[in-house]
Amino acid sequence: MKLQKPYLLFVGDARDDLAAKTAFGVLDWSKDDCIGQFKLPGCASSLNLPELSMAEAAQQGAKTVLIGVAVPGGRIPESWTAPMVEALRRDMSIANGLHTPLDSIAEIRAAAASSEGELLEIREPPENLPVGKGTYRSGHRLLTVGSDCSVGKMYSALAITKELESRNIEVDFRATGQTGIFIAGSGIPVDAVVADFISGSIEQLCPAAPDSHWDVIEGQGALHHPSFAGVSLGLLHGAQPDALVLCHEPTRTNMRGLPNQPMPDLSDVMELYLASARIVCENTRFVGISVNTKHVEESNRIDLLGQLEKCYQLPAVDPFVTGVKELVDHLI
Amino acid sequence: MKLQKPYLLFVGDARDDLAAKTAFGVLDWSKDDCIGQFKLPGCASSLNLPELSMAEAAQQGAKTVLIGVAVPGGRIPESWTAPMVEALRRDMSIANGLHTPLDSIAEIRAAAASSEGELLEIREPPENLPVGKGTYRSGHRLLTVGSDCSVGKMYSALAITKELESRNIEVDFRATGQTGIFIAGSGIPVDAVVADFISGSIEQLCPAAPDSHWDVIEGQGALHHPSFAGVSLGLLHGAQPDALVLCHEPTRTNMRGLPNQPMPDLSDVMELYLASARIVCENTRFVGISVNTKHVEESNRIDLLGQLEKCYQLPAVDPFVTGVKELVDHLI
Repeated sequence: MKLQKPYLLFVGDARDDLAAKTAFGVLDWSKDDCIGQFKLPGCASSLNLPELSMAEAAQQGAKTVLIGVAVPGGRIPESWTAPMVEALRRDMSIANGLHTPLDSIAEIRAAAASSEGELLEIREPPENLPVGKGTYRSGHRLLTVGSDCSVGKMYSALAITKELESRNIEVDFRATGQTGIFIAGSGIPVDAVVADFISGSIEQLCPAAPDSHWDVIEGQGALHHPSFAGVSLGLLHGAQPDALVLCHEPTRTNMRGLPNQPMPDLSDVMELYLASARIVCENTRFVGISVNTKHVEESNRIDLLGQLEKCYQLPAVDPFVTGVKELVDHLI
Repeated sequence: MKLQKPYLLFVGDARDDLAAKTAFGVLDWSKDDCIGQFKLPGCASSLNLPELSMAEAAQQGAKTVLIGVAVPGGRIPESWTAPMVEALRRDMSIANGLHTPLDSIAEIRAAAASSEGELLEIREPPENLPVGKGTYRSGHRLLTVGSDCSVGKMYSALAITKELESRNIEVDFRATGQTGIFIAGSGIPVDAVVADFISGSIEQLCPAAPDSHWDVIEGQGALHHPSFAGVSLGLLHGAQPDALVLCHEPTRTNMRGLPNQPMPDLSDVMELYLASARIVCENTRFVGISVNTKHVEESNRIDLLGQLEKCYQLPAVDPFVTGVKELVDHLI
């Protein structure tokens, strides 16, 4: 899956900034790829970007309209049809990460048929994915893994990628979820892949590379999360990582979405990741802990990171607060 | 997915018994559900069943034609079209576990449209599967797990089910693969489920039950097999098993299909299964080892089982050689 840049960010009639979370994520990490935003009447969110019509965006060279807004229940509002049709008439592609495919709307489907632009359904994995083989491949790979879901795995991977780039190390960010794919312009929606092909899809995503090169791979789910652990394990095997970064949110009392599932001990978490990773890469090691301290009192954040460092003998950072320099120092 | 019995086993133009492996498996475990076989000219395999035409099968009450033969490259031969159309005309359903869906053939699709029989594609998982929750549920569950793929997980599960039945214990065999689904008449093709729903599909397959009841669940893949471990882990979490049976083939030198992937140590295998299972069921334990000794010299088989028993302090059986009584004694 490959998206053409630059992007026009479509925020539609977002009822607040949270609804436009995807657009904000793309803007945070790929500002240079975004030439403007498109809003509908009633939109209550605003990105710090010029507001453009579809005609203006096309004229200024936008290649792809990214749907950067969530919709309640996943249903695409009727008010979106006219601008989507207009975008296709101007030969821009539309990248959609919502559950509802755009071609389920007859007018959009018809417009796409006579457009040079394409409807890119981010949640539909490519066909003919291979079965994973676990065969050794060259190049270095780092995978961000979680003590739980939604603990900052994408954010950490992007921050590490940026830090490696700033040190002139050859690096690619490898996206495995919707927002990551928008940011990278390519990737694989691994949670939508058929179960037999999870590890194979990741082997394809981060192929053999020169030994001077790092792939920094966005993790998904968590080995201790009973809803999604299968995805996390297949991803881990496909990634064949030299280095793991443990992402963690220290204020959680239970696994996300599962009130009765207690948070596991971090030592157990690391042990299970290592035991599972060593099946495909015997030297896998943790190189740091990336903590989302957003919900920790500000005065306690640095102390908490210090405690984790001492306890696990690994750099503990909050990419948002301390940056990831210390972690990358330890990595290389 | 629910299949109506009794069955007519379709072996088509099977070039040998191996090609008709699925039909033989169904016959082994569900003989009473099979009223006959259907062969095409040139068929080199024969089941010990009456040979019936589609008309005769329908007349004798067959409800479903099971495709019990593999085809090279998964392509359905033209010679199958006429009998399939005939089966549908007689209002029998057809259950297909091949990769090619039957409705990709226009004449079969047309015949199905005006038949009371259905085209049942075993490899297509049901829609609207839930996400797994890992919430505690009542009833007892046993899962067969493997040191590798193709080591006898289905066979062991069926043998244990039969032994429990013979002791008047309430038990259901829960199928997760094609042959198992044919035998049980229902199940979920877990390797074809979208990654996010692996554990959820298994929670749905073996729901809460009275505490006097056992579900015996057919495992898939292996946690140490880098191609399919994601499936195995999601299945393990969804199964929430009280009891695990380790299935093993002692003559393997490498993981199936992966010449460079060495076989893991059985202690490591058991440890990883237990660490992973205890996330959803803290009392999970191994209750036995089920060994496929087919490739072990006959005079050494009993010795080998004895060694495994001594080493792991668990009953070690070969369902085909010793039966599973000893294992079920230990279970209950």
